[in-house]
Amino acid sequence: MKEKLLSDAYPFWERLSAEERAELLQSAALVSYRKGECVHRSDMGCTGAVLVLSGLLRVYIVSEEGREVTLFRIRQGEPCVLAASCLLDAIQFDLVIEAAEAAEAVVIPAGVLRPIMESNPYVGLYMYRQATERFSEVMWMMQQILFMGADRRVAIFLWEETAGKGQRTLRMTQDEIARNIGSAREVVSRVLKYLAEEGAVSLGRGLVELRDPEKLRKLFE
Amino acid sequence: MKEKLLSDAYPFWERLSAEERAELLQSAALVSYRKGECVHRSDMGCTGAVLVLSGLLRVYIVSEEGREVTLFRIRQGEPCVLAASCLLDAIQFDLVIEAAEAAEAVVIPAGVLRPIMESNPYVGLYMYRQATERFSEVMWMMQQILFMGADRRVAIFLWEETAGKGQRTLRMTQDEIARNIGSAREVVSRVLKYLAEEGAVSLGRGLVELRDPEKLRKLFE
Repeated sequence: MKEKLLSDAYPFWERLSAEERAELLQSAALVSYRKGECVHRSDMGCTGAVLVLSGLLRVYIVSEEGREVTLFRIRQGEPCVLAASCLLDAIQFDLVIEAAEAAEAVVIPAGVLRPIMESNPYVGLYMYRQATERFSEVMWMMQQILFMGADRRVAIFLWEETAGKGQRTLRMTQDEIARNIGSAREVVSRVLKYLAEEGAVSLGRGLVELRDPEKLRKLFE
Repeated sequence: MKEKLLSDAYPFWERLSAEERAELLQSAALVSYRKGECVHRSDMGCTGAVLVLSGLLRVYIVSEEGREVTLFRIRQGEPCVLAASCLLDAIQFDLVIEAAEAAEAVVIPAGVLRPIMESNPYVGLYMYRQATERFSEVMWMMQQILFMGADRRVAIFLWEETAGKGQRTLRMTQDEIARNIGSAREVVSRVLKYLAEEGAVSLGRGLVELRDPEKLRKLFE
C-alpha cells in the first residue's frame, strides 16, 4: 500500500535499487496536520519530501512585518520537494508551508533522502525538476502581481474559484482573497465593493456570491 | 581550449562518455552578441546552454504593455541554462535574454543537448539544479519587490552600484534603474529627487553621483 503510493508519486522509484526502496519504505511516515499547522519553516530544520494524501497545503513567503504572499498550493496526490529545501542547496530563500486544511501526508525524511540523492542522480534530477516546476508556477503568478491591475487579478481569481469550478459561491474572507492574489485587503475590498455595485457579485460575511458571470468575465478580457 | 572551457563550466563533464564529450565539443559554437541583441526569446526557438565568456547578459520578463522587469544578469564565466528552457519542460513561462553589453558566449545547441540529457541523468540534474538556483535568486528579488518600499529599494540599488563597488558614479538612466529594481520610472524619479534634495546624491543626464554615502545608507538600515 505504502509502496504503491510512493511508486505512483515518485517516477524515480523504478531507478532505485532494492535496498534504496526498502530504506525509503521503512522511513516514510504517515503524518497528520491540523488545519493551520506548520509543515515546514526554515528554522524548524528539514522536513523532507512530502506527498499529500488528503487536505491542502499552502506554500507562502512572509515579510519582516508579517505580510504573507501565497506562492502555490499542494493538493491531494501532489508531491512537494520544497519542504526538503535543506537538501536542495540551490534554494537560498525562506518559505513556509502550512496546512490550509487538515491534511495527511507521507513524508520521506531528509536524512534518509540525502545519501540516496547523492548516490542516485535520478532522485536529485526529480527533486530539482519538481522545484523548477513550482518556481515556474510562481513566476507566472509574480508576473500577474507585477504586471496586472488588482481589479483584473481579483476578477480572474473569483472567476476561477466560482464559474471556473462550476460553482456560484466562494467561501473566503477578503483577507484570504488578498493573500491568494498577493495584494492588500484594502485593495481587494475596494474591487469587491465595485463588483458588488455593478451587480457582478454579492458579498456576505466570509463569502462572495457570483451574480453576473458575464460582467465578471468582461473585467479580464 | 574549448574543452577546458566546457569541462570547467559544466560539472557534468566528467560524467559524460567519450562520445558525448566529442559531440558537445563539435557542436559548441562561439557566438558574439552586439549590445542590445536578443540571445533568447521563446518565439525564437530554442537556443541551448549558454556560457558567457565576456560581456553581460540580462534576463527579464515583459508585460503585454512592454514593461520589463530584470530577473538577473549572467556575468563572465557564468552558465545559463534558461536559454534552453525548451529542454526544461518544467518551465512554462516566457523570458527574454539579451546582451546588456557586447558579449561572447559558447552555446551548446539544444538539439545536441536533448538526447544527451535524456540518456545521462547527470546532465538533466545539472540543468534543473541551475534553473532552481536562478529561480531562488529571482524569488529573493521578488520578495524585495513585494515587501520593501521603493525608497529602500532605490537606496540599496544605488549603494550596491556605487559605494558597494568602491565607486561614486552610477551611469544609468532613471528608466534603467527602474527596470533594474522592478519599479516604475515615476517612482524612481520621485525617490531620486528626494535623495538629491537631501544631498545624498546629485543627478545628471543619465547618471547619479553619490554625495553623502551615510545618508543613503540610513535609508535602508
